[in-house]
Amino acid sequence: MMSRFSNVIKPLALFLLATPVIAAAEIASSGLGDAIRQVQQYNFAIHILAMLLVGFGFLMVFVKRYGYSATTGTYLVVAAGIPLYMALRYTGWLSHEPVYPHTIIGLLLAEFAVASALIAMGAILGRVKLFQYALLAIIMVPLYMLNEKWVLDGALGFTAGFKDSAGSIIIHAFGAYFGLGLAVALTSKKHREEPVPSDDTSNRFAMLGSMVLWLFWPSFCSAVVAPDHVAIAAVNTILALCGATLSTLLMSAVFSKGKVMIGDIANAALAGGVSIGATCDVVNGPTALLIGVLAGALCVFGYAVVQARLQKLLNIMDTCGVHNLHGMPGLLGGVVAAFVVPGIAKAQIAGIIVTMALAIAGGVAGGVIIRATGSRETVYEDGEEFSNAQG
Amino acid sequence: MMSRFSNVIKPLALFLLATPVIAAAEIASSGLGDAIRQVQQYNFAIHILAMLLVGFGFLMVFVKRYGYSATTGTYLVVAAGIPLYMALRYTGWLSHEPVYPHTIIGLLLAEFAVASALIAMGAILGRVKLFQYALLAIIMVPLYMLNEKWVLDGALGFTAGFKDSAGSIIIHAFGAYFGLGLAVALTSKKHREEPVPSDDTSNRFAMLGSMVLWLFWPSFCSAVVAPDHVAIAAVNTILALCGATLSTLLMSAVFSKGKVMIGDIANAALAGGVSIGATCDVVNGPTALLIGVLAGALCVFGYAVVQARLQKLLNIMDTCGVHNLHGMPGLLGGVVAAFVVPGIAKAQIAGIIVTMALAIAGGVAGGVIIRATGSRETVYEDGEEFSNAQG
Amino acid sequence: MMSRFSNVIKPLALFLLATPVIAAAEIASSGLGDAIRQVQQYNFAIHILAMLLVGFGFLMVFVKRYGYSATTGTYLVVAAGIPLYMALRYTGWLSHEPVYPHTIIGLLLAEFAVASALIAMGAILGRVKLFQYALLAIIMVPLYMLNEKWVLDGALGFTAGFKDSAGSIIIHAFGAYFGLGLAVALTSKKHREEPVPSDDTSNRFAMLGSMVLWLFWPSFCSAVVAPDHVAIAAVNTILALCGATLSTLLMSAVFSKGKVMIGDIANAALAGGVSIGATCDVVNGPTALLIGVLAGALCVFGYAVVQARLQKLLNIMDTCGVHNLHGMPGLLGGVVAAFVVPGIAKAQIAGIIVTMALAIAGGVAGGVIIRATGSRETVYEDGEEFSNAQG
Repeated sequence: MMSRFSNVIKPLALFLLATPVIAAAEIASSGLGDAIRQVQQYNFAIHILAMLLVGFGFLMVFVKRYGYSATTGTYLVVAAGIPLYMALRYTGWLSHEPVYPHTIIGLLLAEFAVASALIAMGAILGRVKLFQYALLAIIMVPLYMLNEKWVLDGALGFTAGFKDSAGSIIIHAFGAYFGLGLAVALTSKKHREEPVPSDDTSNRFAMLGSMVLWLFWPSFCSAVVAPDHVAIAAVNTILALCGATLSTLLMSAVFSKGKVMIGDIANAALAGGVSIGATCDVVNGPTALLIGVLAGALCVFGYAVVQARLQKLLNIMDTCGVHNLHGMPGLLGGVVAAFVVPGIAKAQIAGIIVTMALAIAGGVAGGVIIRATGSRETVYEDGEEFSNAQG
Repeated sequence: MMSRFSNVIKPLALFLLATPVIAAAEIASSGLGDAIRQVQQYNFAIHILAMLLVGFGFLMVFVKRYGYSATTGTYLVVAAGIPLYMALRYTGWLSHEPVYPHTIIGLLLAEFAVASALIAMGAILGRVKLFQYALLAIIMVPLYMLNEKWVLDGALGFTAGFKDSAGSIIIHAFGAYFGLGLAVALTSKKHREEPVPSDDTSNRFAMLGSMVLWLFWPSFCSAVVAPDHVAIAAVNTILALCGATLSTLLMSAVFSKGKVMIGDIANAALAGGVSIGATCDVVNGPTALLIGVLAGALCVFGYAVVQARLQKLLNIMDTCGVHNLHGMPGLLGGVVAAFVVPGIAKAQIAGIIVTMALAIAGGVAGGVIIRATGSRETVYEDGEEFSNAQG
Repeated sequence: MMSRFSNVIKPLALFLLATPVIAAAEIASSGLGDAIRQVQQYNFAIHILAMLLVGFGFLMVFVKRYGYSATTGTYLVVAAGIPLYMALRYTGWLSHEPVYPHTIIGLLLAEFAVASALIAMGAILGRVKLFQYALLAIIMVPLYMLNEKWVLDGALGFTAGFKDSAGSIIIHAFGAYFGLGLAVALTSKKHREEPVPSDDTSNRFAMLGSMVLWLFWPSFCSAVVAPDHVAIAAVNTILALCGATLSTLLMSAVFSKGKVMIGDIANAALAGGVSIGATCDVVNGPTALLIGVLAGALCVFGYAVVQARLQKLLNIMDTCGVHNLHGMPGLLGGVVAAFVVPGIAKAQIAGIIVTMALAIAGGVAGGVIIRATGSRETVYEDGEEFSNAQG
């Protein structure tokens, strides 16, 4: 125990004291190819940051009188999650190898962890206090890292070959099921009776968030694939998003009897990005389009049919319907990979099971901890915590 | 006929079955210079996607109760247009040479086609059903490709030397006159009597769209110029936008008797980007600034004077005034090129005439087809198709 | 005098007549390393443009009925400031060396000048006419250039070693104190009695502006550091922003008795970016985080305590509180540099004093000039200058 502890502390101390010259030297010694990669991945990192803040943040502004809290909560998850992932990752403690923080790859990996935390946040949006969004990130990031190590980096052994190029399972499904776990502990009877109101302005902001997610999603999916597969991953991601957007309109009209729901458009158009994540760098174009079509349809089906039943079954609220957008489409992507890539079916199933188990258990436990630090009186209302919010 | 048909079907089948390994191999075999170009153009492609979705999308949110439909329609044009262009372009059928879809250049060319379709959409915004926006893209993209082949790629012969580096004619004017053509078929007497309402919030969203277009416009204009002319094209684009922004304020005050119109600012500030498109990589700075000043003034003049007369003359509505922002400034850019580049006057005039003829004829025909698939009862109202829109 | 005049006129004439071929030739002759750098800095330039327009622009939309003017004013400062900086810089007159306009570095330097002007604009927002925002840029840019030459480029001699990698002093503090100087001349008794109203929608737009600034800030700070220090600067910037975001929530709750202010979140979360500017490429991670924590706390303290006293003392209004966000955190960053970098304390203090003196004197003089060109009747109201603004 003592030795493991010092194994963590030593690099942490190094991190606290080291000057960034180390990283500079590393970069300077690399060749032109690495310099190109640095520029490429730097831009991916900024694009993903746009998704985390404006994308996730404003997609959650759809709740009418909760826009201040949704954006502030987003800020807090990012601000707590990124430094925590960087510091922990530098120690190598919960990971298969340490990553130096002052690198673009370190930043990208931290952003992926935060994306997962923002997804989980969507499930309990409006029912916790502001500081508890930061607490959520602090609880969730280490568990996300454990899953990353166990499943993606293969530390458990039996997930060797697990395919999840851009996180359908590791980021999206983990985040969604962690969020459902949180919701189990953080939904009261009163919460379930309270409607989640939106209006024309809050929904237009949500469409802005949706579009920012859509347009930068190619960078999310390309961020850590091999450099010569970036164009493939990016185009496949766009094709999947196009497919989902088209099937969303159709399915929303089917389920809403001719009219469509703006919430379906804002969310389900993105499901293609979630599902293509596992295989964005290996499928061909028509397959990508088809995956998107299925993902969009599945997501609309989730909002129209599954969500109410699931909420009743588990006595929860899933404010943003993250199960519809990130849970089921994430699983779809992970399962599709087992058909597309030969010989990985067992690893894929094993990886999915471990991810879901850790996410749900971690989410429930995390929710209990969060609940212990206090609870809201009124839900979905900025006025409870902001002194200048309107009634 | 049969042979031509199989010429289309064979590559289409290849497209449907091919794995993306081809593209990866192509990229891997290229040198570092190509790798740099890939990174450069990838970022252009994402920036242009931001223009298509958040830029065009939110600029059209200026219609007060039509924000859901404007953004959803934007999604649909993008989602239908990009895969269609990619698939058709891969066959080489309507083009001078096939382009593999899983490449950044393929993505960029598809985005240009979609930009043109979104411009056309602006002319009939609010007067068609949601699915008809997707239909618009499906009808328009092949005709856009034909014009691209005939005029830009010189298949007609007599446009050799035609200069249109970033699409003043091919993208902007084509889109605007196609839109006017659509409007001829899709404007009823009742439509013309209906005002297009906006309010403070819808106009602030429109200013967001305007700014997103402005700031990414350098990438639009630089996307396919020679790599060593990117800085020139980008700076000229910014200078033209600056010129247009300044002349817009002045002209708007002139035409509105001291006060200005927010619609002028949101739109005409962008006219410099439209007009500089033809010559962004060859003019010097002061010329770029001057082109912008003229473009902004022309656009404000269009909103203040031309639009009402044109609408009366043709019995149409041009909801967003695309003729003011993309039509006239596009032509201005195309004509300026004939003065700036020696010896291309004939090619330039010929290219403009072919583009306008194809756009107007295609637009009218397209409008007739769209009208045959149904028409709206109430115009400029989300409530007709969205179940949760406010009254 | 005559000789100096012709020294300016000759390059200016060259600028007006030269074709951009010069720049193209320069780029073509450069190696692959330079080509990578071009791509890298191009993206920084676009990211900073996003900050200038959507970032600064929408952060200032927080004023309830002044959204049209805030965004239009932003457009005007950018449109007047960028060409002016480029033209002046090309002459080399107010600078230590001329910079060719059709280069990415020329664009970046112009954007920095405009950022400073937009900061100054925030101090007097709502109290000048639209055209006066353009006038502000025209007056301020040459003075900014003088300070850039004197302090940053060392023309005064005694600031040799002055450390300000991303403009804590040169951009942020200069802009803030210039703005306070303007406010001295442009605040009447009536202005001081008029409240600055905001509402839920204007504040949600402000949060959008805030997030756009936050997410592109790494590009702002990395834009002109050495290529092999980009990752260090970017990660440090993010860590500082994270630190400021966390301390903002805490301090806002302290000063607002348990509740928080959305204005604190929108602004103070960014203070980390301001303060890290001076040393973003040399500090280690924990130091960056700590600088951010201090900056956020200082900024909230500014809004809660300092602003009212400062306004009373100087008989001014600081509409956006730029002294809290850019003034004090800018100085903090500049002072921290004196502790972090050995042997520069004297240069640092000297640079800060010159910057503040020039900013305040220039601001007051500029304000007097602006006031001489007219003044508003009603403040913070779009209706005074926009013909279609709501009451």
